[in-house]
Amino acid sequence: MNQPENLSSTHQDALTIQADVLLQKVIDAWTQLRLQQPLVQCITNSVASNYTANVLLAAGASPAMIDNPFEAMSFANIAAALSINLGTPTTEQMQAMQISAETVTEKGTPWVLDPVGYGPFLKWRSEMVDQLVQLNPTIIRGNASEISTLAGNQVISKGVDSTLNSAEVYIQAKSLLQHAECIAISGESDFILSKELNTVIQVNGGSYLQPKVTATGCALGALIAAYSAVATPTIAAIAAHVHFAIAGKSAFTRTQSVGSFNVAFLDEIYEITADKFSEYADIQVLK
Amino acid sequence: MNQPENLSSTHQDALTIQADVLLQKVIDAWTQLRLQQPLVQCITNSVASNYTANVLLAAGASPAMIDNPFEAMSFANIAAALSINLGTPTTEQMQAMQISAETVTEKGTPWVLDPVGYGPFLKWRSEMVDQLVQLNPTIIRGNASEISTLAGNQVISKGVDSTLNSAEVYIQAKSLLQHAECIAISGESDFILSKELNTVIQVNGGSYLQPKVTATGCALGALIAAYSAVATPTIAAIAAHVHFAIAGKSAFTRTQSVGSFNVAFLDEIYEITADKFSEYADIQVLK
Amino acid sequence: MNQPENLSSTHQDALTIQADVLLQKVIDAWTQLRLQQPLVQCITNSVASNYTANVLLAAGASPAMIDNPFEAMSFANIAAALSINLGTPTTEQMQAMQISAETVTEKGTPWVLDPVGYGPFLKWRSEMVDQLVQLNPTIIRGNASEISTLAGNQVISKGVDSTLNSAEVYIQAKSLLQHAECIAISGESDFILSKELNTVIQVNGGSYLQPKVTATGCALGALIAAYSAVATPTIAAIAAHVHFAIAGKSAFTRTQSVGSFNVAFLDEIYEITADKFSEYADIQVLK
Repeated sequence: MNQPENLSSTHQDALTIQADVLLQKVIDAWTQLRLQQPLVQCITNSVASNYTANVLLAAGASPAMIDNPFEAMSFANIAAALSINLGTPTTEQMQAMQISAETVTEKGTPWVLDPVGYGPFLKWRSEMVDQLVQLNPTIIRGNASEISTLAGNQVISKGVDSTLNSAEVYIQAKSLLQHAECIAISGESDFILSKELNTVIQVNGGSYLQPKVTATGCALGALIAAYSAVATPTIAAIAAHVHFAIAGKSAFTRTQSVGSFNVAFLDEIYEITADKFSEYADIQVLK
Repeated sequence: MNQPENLSSTHQDALTIQADVLLQKVIDAWTQLRLQQPLVQCITNSVASNYTANVLLAAGASPAMIDNPFEAMSFANIAAALSINLGTPTTEQMQAMQISAETVTEKGTPWVLDPVGYGPFLKWRSEMVDQLVQLNPTIIRGNASEISTLAGNQVISKGVDSTLNSAEVYIQAKSLLQHAECIAISGESDFILSKELNTVIQVNGGSYLQPKVTATGCALGALIAAYSAVATPTIAAIAAHVHFAIAGKSAFTRTQSVGSFNVAFLDEIYEITADKFSEYADIQVLK
Repeated sequence: MNQPENLSSTHQDALTIQADVLLQKVIDAWTQLRLQQPLVQCITNSVASNYTANVLLAAGASPAMIDNPFEAMSFANIAAALSINLGTPTTEQMQAMQISAETVTEKGTPWVLDPVGYGPFLKWRSEMVDQLVQLNPTIIRGNASEISTLAGNQVISKGVDSTLNSAEVYIQAKSLLQHAECIAISGESDFILSKELNTVIQVNGGSYLQPKVTATGCALGALIAAYSAVATPTIAAIAAHVHFAIAGKSAFTRTQSVGSFNVAFLDEIYEITADKFSEYADIQVLK
């Protein structure tokens, strides 16, 4: 029902099949996540650290918040994935980000960059993001505003006063694929741009309460990293977004207020099953 | 029932009316908070950061925990209010506090100072608080011990071995009004000293469980800041305290244990309505 | 039922009595904790700070997260106990750890060392742990992996590739008693090695969900510190582990998912009673 109107029915059949294939790969990724319990190094902000660790544990991964420059290299060397989040950076975290990103890049370990707050009012972190983007993160994820600003600055130099709607954002964000395998834009619907599949995947679900709970986006970035340890970048991004979308939707059926939603959401992240993935996943291949 | 016994009935009528006026302004402030969703820069401690962000989101504000010195000036320039909390300061946070406070002072943006732990055993932060007080915060808020010590040191040089009861604290705290528009003292009852109205306002409510949940006071300070973006300093302080008092009291009717109280409290912060303000607010104008 | 099979019935009676004595001392310690509300300085990681403070408050202690080097000495001087946790250290926290540990050692104030992540991939913290161990912490606590590695490095120089089972761990850990009054190893069963009693105490209980909630181990370390302000090191360690084991077991009867378990666990920490200690404590004296 949510498919673009200009698609012929032949196209629709093809896309439906492809979404099914993606769903199966998502379920496989989730199974692997629980089996392998990958060690995910998270350099994240003070608001999100507890929540992120709990989300990763609930999903089956092993989080480790190693964010000092003195241990960044040796730990990045053994991590199965790295998640870098620019929420509340300190000088020591900034150094750790750079060292860890360089280390995993050299090793071929997947990593996720979440450019929280990217833009002209937060130049210190934005300059670090620019540097990190040059190291070619496996996946870049953010909200529409961050991604559109980043895409504008990195490639088109449009500046930051972007008032694009979300459909325009994912078109503009394509330019970032020269720096990453995958770009993931979270919002009311999520859009995942895949270099591998040369497509845009839309994920629906979740709840309007999610943005009213702090650090959900940050935890999502870390969950993408966790999945990237056991799946291709595209499947990792889709899996994490679908996992969140189903958990958010299910949690909302249990409670409609923020404190208890936060609790129910963690429960649902933990309680997901292959059947729930099959029943509730709303994945659409846009083109 | 809680009114001082020495008031004549004539006085009581006058005060009752005034409290009603304040209540209406509180409801207006809350309406504006949800409409305007003001951007509140929070420099806060590691214990309180997640909780504070969730309280502000639940209330309708937009929190941003920008606490590094390199972005402090540019962000303070766009923030609608600033909240400074001295809970677990780092050197970089201390620098950010000073820069941000100077920036908002120059711009006329309202800001709240919460001198957590002020006293002789924590001199580093106390000296910073002394400096920040000289910049004339819009509102200073703390518990009775912090405020009485701060009032003693700033003005009367009484030292810190204050064993004043809460009634005495708000009398002593008046001296701090030379540095702020409003002094807010949280406790079993809250007392708000207003330069604007030249009165002391008492707010009752809440639950004895609130101090058993960490960071409630810290989040209250940030909520005062959020309200100060949409109301006068006095109304902002009253609104935040009443919002907390009603949420605390309502949460306690749902649960009497700390973990679930914490969850219910966030729910109640989010679920407040104008009707609940009208029904449950317990505002008293003392003089 | 869980007693070693090779014990004669005479031995079993003796041990049963001893466990009863320990249980009574645990209940006394808990009573004192609530009466005295000891001030516990916690230097802990960004993931655990909020949760640790809430656990201590729920148990009846007064947590204070003073973790900067500029206030470390003066505050350690007034604290009733100190908890040092190496989860996500910063340079300033590292300095605070050393200063605070030296201060409390000189004063005779009890302190707990939790060497989170000790091992060859995290050398910076491990070197700090080695230094802190030389100051003779009152209690060292950690999981089996951390404690076995620490025991190996400090004493036997076995290196870190220890694949000991938990029974072997507590035998190996005995070497650490030259540096501490008590070694506490958390796991499916907890083992507490006591220099005072020259025994090993096993504590059973808890839930398999506990390790799926982040920072439970970190909070346990801080709770041991809180109890050490009101009891001997051995009783403090047993009391904290029993408190956690009962709360974990009780919480699991209320919910079997991680988010709500987390909430229920805090509730149960708060709601414990002498009767619950008597009914549910599973303390065994191994030798």
